[in-house]
Amino acid sequence: MINFALFGAGRIGALHAANIAASHPRARLSCVYDLNPAAAAAIAGKHGAKASPNVDAALADPAIDAVLIASSTNTHVELITASARAGKAILCEKPIDLDIELVERCRREISGTGVPIQIGFNRRYDRSHGAVRESDVGALELLVITSRDPGLPPLPYLKVSGGIFRDMTIHDFDLARFILRDDAIEEVFATGSTLVEPALRELGDVDTAMVIMRAASGALVHINNSRRAVYGYDQRVELFGAKGMVQSENLRSSTVKRHDARATDAKEPLLNFFIERYQQSYADELNDFIDAVANERQPSVGFDDGRCALILANAALESMRSGKSVRVNYG
Amino acid sequence: MINFALFGAGRIGALHAANIAASHPRARLSCVYDLNPAAAAAIAGKHGAKASPNVDAALADPAIDAVLIASSTNTHVELITASARAGKAILCEKPIDLDIELVERCRREISGTGVPIQIGFNRRYDRSHGAVRESDVGALELLVITSRDPGLPPLPYLKVSGGIFRDMTIHDFDLARFILRDDAIEEVFATGSTLVEPALRELGDVDTAMVIMRAASGALVHINNSRRAVYGYDQRVELFGAKGMVQSENLRSSTVKRHDARATDAKEPLLNFFIERYQQSYADELNDFIDAVANERQPSVGFDDGRCALILANAALESMRSGKSVRVNYG
Amino acid sequence: MINFALFGAGRIGALHAANIAASHPRARLSCVYDLNPAAAAAIAGKHGAKASPNVDAALADPAIDAVLIASSTNTHVELITASARAGKAILCEKPIDLDIELVERCRREISGTGVPIQIGFNRRYDRSHGAVRESDVGALELLVITSRDPGLPPLPYLKVSGGIFRDMTIHDFDLARFILRDDAIEEVFATGSTLVEPALRELGDVDTAMVIMRAASGALVHINNSRRAVYGYDQRVELFGAKGMVQSENLRSSTVKRHDARATDAKEPLLNFFIERYQQSYADELNDFIDAVANERQPSVGFDDGRCALILANAALESMRSGKSVRVNYG
Amino acid sequence: MINFALFGAGRIGALHAANIAASHPRARLSCVYDLNPAAAAAIAGKHGAKASPNVDAALADPAIDAVLIASSTNTHVELITASARAGKAILCEKPIDLDIELVERCRREISGTGVPIQIGFNRRYDRSHGAVRESDVGALELLVITSRDPGLPPLPYLKVSGGIFRDMTIHDFDLARFILRDDAIEEVFATGSTLVEPALRELGDVDTAMVIMRAASGALVHINNSRRAVYGYDQRVELFGAKGMVQSENLRSSTVKRHDARATDAKEPLLNFFIERYQQSYADELNDFIDAVANERQPSVGFDDGRCALILANAALESMRSGKSVRVNYG
Repeated sequence: MINFALFGAGRIGALHAANIAASHPRARLSCVYDLNPAAAAAIAGKHGAKASPNVDAALADPAIDAVLIASSTNTHVELITASARAGKAILCEKPIDLDIELVERCRREISGTGVPIQIGFNRRYDRSHGAVRESDVGALELLVITSRDPGLPPLPYLKVSGGIFRDMTIHDFDLARFILRDDAIEEVFATGSTLVEPALRELGDVDTAMVIMRAASGALVHINNSRRAVYGYDQRVELFGAKGMVQSENLRSSTVKRHDARATDAKEPLLNFFIERYQQSYADELNDFIDAVANERQPSVGFDDGRCALILANAALESMRSGKSVRVNYG
Repeated sequence: MINFALFGAGRIGALHAANIAASHPRARLSCVYDLNPAAAAAIAGKHGAKASPNVDAALADPAIDAVLIASSTNTHVELITASARAGKAILCEKPIDLDIELVERCRREISGTGVPIQIGFNRRYDRSHGAVRESDVGALELLVITSRDPGLPPLPYLKVSGGIFRDMTIHDFDLARFILRDDAIEEVFATGSTLVEPALRELGDVDTAMVIMRAASGALVHINNSRRAVYGYDQRVELFGAKGMVQSENLRSSTVKRHDARATDAKEPLLNFFIERYQQSYADELNDFIDAVANERQPSVGFDDGRCALILANAALESMRSGKSVRVNYG
Repeated sequence: MINFALFGAGRIGALHAANIAASHPRARLSCVYDLNPAAAAAIAGKHGAKASPNVDAALADPAIDAVLIASSTNTHVELITASARAGKAILCEKPIDLDIELVERCRREISGTGVPIQIGFNRRYDRSHGAVRESDVGALELLVITSRDPGLPPLPYLKVSGGIFRDMTIHDFDLARFILRDDAIEEVFATGSTLVEPALRELGDVDTAMVIMRAASGALVHINNSRRAVYGYDQRVELFGAKGMVQSENLRSSTVKRHDARATDAKEPLLNFFIERYQQSYADELNDFIDAVANERQPSVGFDDGRCALILANAALESMRSGKSVRVNYG
Repeated sequence: MINFALFGAGRIGALHAANIAASHPRARLSCVYDLNPAAAAAIAGKHGAKASPNVDAALADPAIDAVLIASSTNTHVELITASARAGKAILCEKPIDLDIELVERCRREISGTGVPIQIGFNRRYDRSHGAVRESDVGALELLVITSRDPGLPPLPYLKVSGGIFRDMTIHDFDLARFILRDDAIEEVFATGSTLVEPALRELGDVDTAMVIMRAASGALVHINNSRRAVYGYDQRVELFGAKGMVQSENLRSSTVKRHDARATDAKEPLLNFFIERYQQSYADELNDFIDAVANERQPSVGFDDGRCALILANAALESMRSGKSVRVNYG
């Protein structure tokens, strides 16, 4: 039995809390902390956990085996560091931080603690994307990732999001690394436009973006993003190689097709967003973490994966600003 | 070069005329006859043919090699008989006639003339239905034919149509025989409802029908029909056997898929009707006939195919009236 | 909190036990009984329940609110009767019994007990079939149900199964009734062949079947069944009416499409069987039952639904034997 | 009636000759010239035309209304210039030339002749791509063009092809311009790899490429190419905007879907190459040209479209070499 402390009682925290509860008898939600005590109490109450008055109390509790960090991004590094020092296993939502310097410092500070740290790149656990990765298309030549959100987050969030590449595309950078395996991405070109929300222009951010990356093998990767797809959360992966092509398509809540005087084969809009689309992934992600902790092995998606995805996001940002292809330096 | 006389200058006659013209240099439309001289003249003029004042003149012309009979059903038997006696090769639209007695008599009368006679079961030439037939599904167990027209023909036509089984389902009966090859249909059950056009009730006809047939091997066949599918002309075949299933799907005029806030993967309505849907089939049907004539071989779809399809249609009608499964007697 | 006794610790019992456990905090598995005590103990142990030495002990326990009957069909009537007398809410797997006389007697015996009784027609809870039913296709004209199992059950099971119509098609009869709502099925024609397992011939049973039914409105229903679809569990529903068509398609475990030199758009085989295909349905079925019990309302799928589906299955059997369409008498 | 002289009797010349013949009575193939007299004679003989001993003879013939230039690329400019001076309407295969200087000079030399000149960008006439272009997706934000050939042309051809961007991607550059309408492409980034045919490395050419372009509106365009798709000629267009997405999918020769123990929904490989895939486009392209000549209007796809596509291809080449995004200068 793994006892969890949950830091962060927002939407994603609530999801993780429910998954921990559903993982019984392997896991138990022990306590919940949030800046907003009412939010923490609500989730705690729902799952028979207690609300923690602060982080330190939770970390000091020897009954706590693991922490799940689902608080705002700017608290991640501090919570990771403190939790690692307290010897707790860590499952932290992406990104580690927006500032690569802070990430590097965090890496140095927790080196030697030996605690398992997993970064919440949930798409790695999606069954369809996973099946694409396992497919044999021969030598990989082209990888195309389509990743479009159903709608923009609120402006206050966008202001502290770190921009589209570090906030949204970072999932796609990680997915590309996951599919490419040992074939390192060496070069990044990126560009973007502000076509959906004009207010982003003042923030120097974009809502529509395209990326091309080149891997060591010569394989080419394309990512395209939009912050607004009116037909739902569009998440597709296409892998092309010497032997053929494999695609993972979108999910819908039913298999129904309608035919009338105006259209045929019409399906319902795509599942709306990540909570629905990646429901299975979130559950499997947690179970993989629990398994790593229980078996004292390193998690499948580690701190360095979080660091490398951020490095790619930074390269994309630099490329968009300079108009040049950027060589990636993983340090 | 095969010189054709066309009997019947309606919609289907015009189609065949254009296909004959497109078959050059293998075929030529020499003359056109229709009860309505203006209609004959229009088609003749378009393709550099002459209008015939009557059938006899056309049949007496030694330059004519073949006749294409696209006139109304009640003239087929007479035209077949006269053309066969005149030694012309014959391509006749389905059905041969609505009355099996007349068909049998026609068969006797033309026996011995040795002219090639082909019945216009165009679906046998559809590339997709054909690929289904050629597929290896192991021992055939289930065959499901979905066949729905986009809309009702006018009432005057319906009154002389012979009813849904002899007018519309007859294509499906033939398609079933084509796919089953040597496995003879032995038993027919059919039923129907008048759900679209109440006036059919007075005619003893239905617009919505279902059929089950059993072949000698035990394979089962289902046909379902409607006279009105608002999304277009719905033509599908599904073959199921010991090794799997093969389906032929509908055609559309483009491959476009639309996604908006209400629907995803929405395609356009199906091609509207037989002229559009079976365009390739009509052309290939004619070319196969030309090939048979040129090479002095029997056509692939013969008089007996027309006769057997009518026998199945009659069995369906008898079954619908009696509520009993009917054993088929091919005579 | 609803406390359950589970009768029957086979494959389907294990599924229900897990779903009850997952329904916490609304439900709890209290005890499990099976003729095979080891099987009962295994499931009980897994979910923190106790194994019951016999049915009477479970029914005598006032802490038990509901029973879930997942034992062999020939025990259903007795268990329903005893449970109803003990005042327990009942969720019983289909069919109620193979003998309509026993079902009628059971109905009389439990009338007046007022306990909620739900029959396990899981397909009514399938999200896709459900969406089809809710769709507006205008006046319903044609309903086509394709229902094919991936493989035959063992012969010993088949010997006591009651034949394909009462064992397998019964789900489709119920689904047709569900979709037709108040439009009663009045007439049944059925036929079948033994094409997969020759041993069935001696049992007078078939493994391949087709049914046509007519509803009061004139709407026509087709069902086709096979006991062996090598590509997986094939479960489709097609609804056709004055305004268009709606179809529910099969489920697969991922959305992957493969393209190579031999094929394009190739997806994986269908989910193998009911446990996987109707996972969501089984969970929702149980939750609907729990909701009915908790809110003291009648279950959505009642005893009479089980009775009527059996009447249709019997009519199909009679039709197959007589070669005639059978008028349905619901008594 | 438009009388054509055909220059070039290779594969694509033969296609055009057949289309001219099929366009009767609007067009006639009068003469054919090729460096290889036997090739010219073969096509001429097939369609009742005569073989020309040289270009000048054909251009001097006042009965010739139009020329169709399907010879090797390095002869295009000279033939266009001579034909324009001779007052013939011109339909010339893409590209005009590989050297933008020659193209500019040609433009100057033929200015003032006023003859209709159409460039053979056949994809503009594809019904599905065309329907995509006509679709209302709101303000256009993303355009993704997937364009992969089934296999490499022979090395001797590749050596004089001008490289992937000017030989193959040039179709996609034109298609992007066609879909973007008045929204000019201002910036191009491109990269490529040699993953299929190592010999291309010595030619400084690639066989696998990705492009990102930015239009004046901020709309982003992605193109990905491969010279080898083992599943057939992969030609897709995806248009994404404020109101939704529209895609044009690939064509196959039938609609058949196969299901067996290994795969479901498996379709046949895509049509193999441009002659098959764009059959309808080639016919419509010719008919549009004939219509322009007959009605004395400017062709829909003009000389400047050929020039602009070459400018984009050159920008892509420069970008691939420099690693920088290139501003497009249309001169």
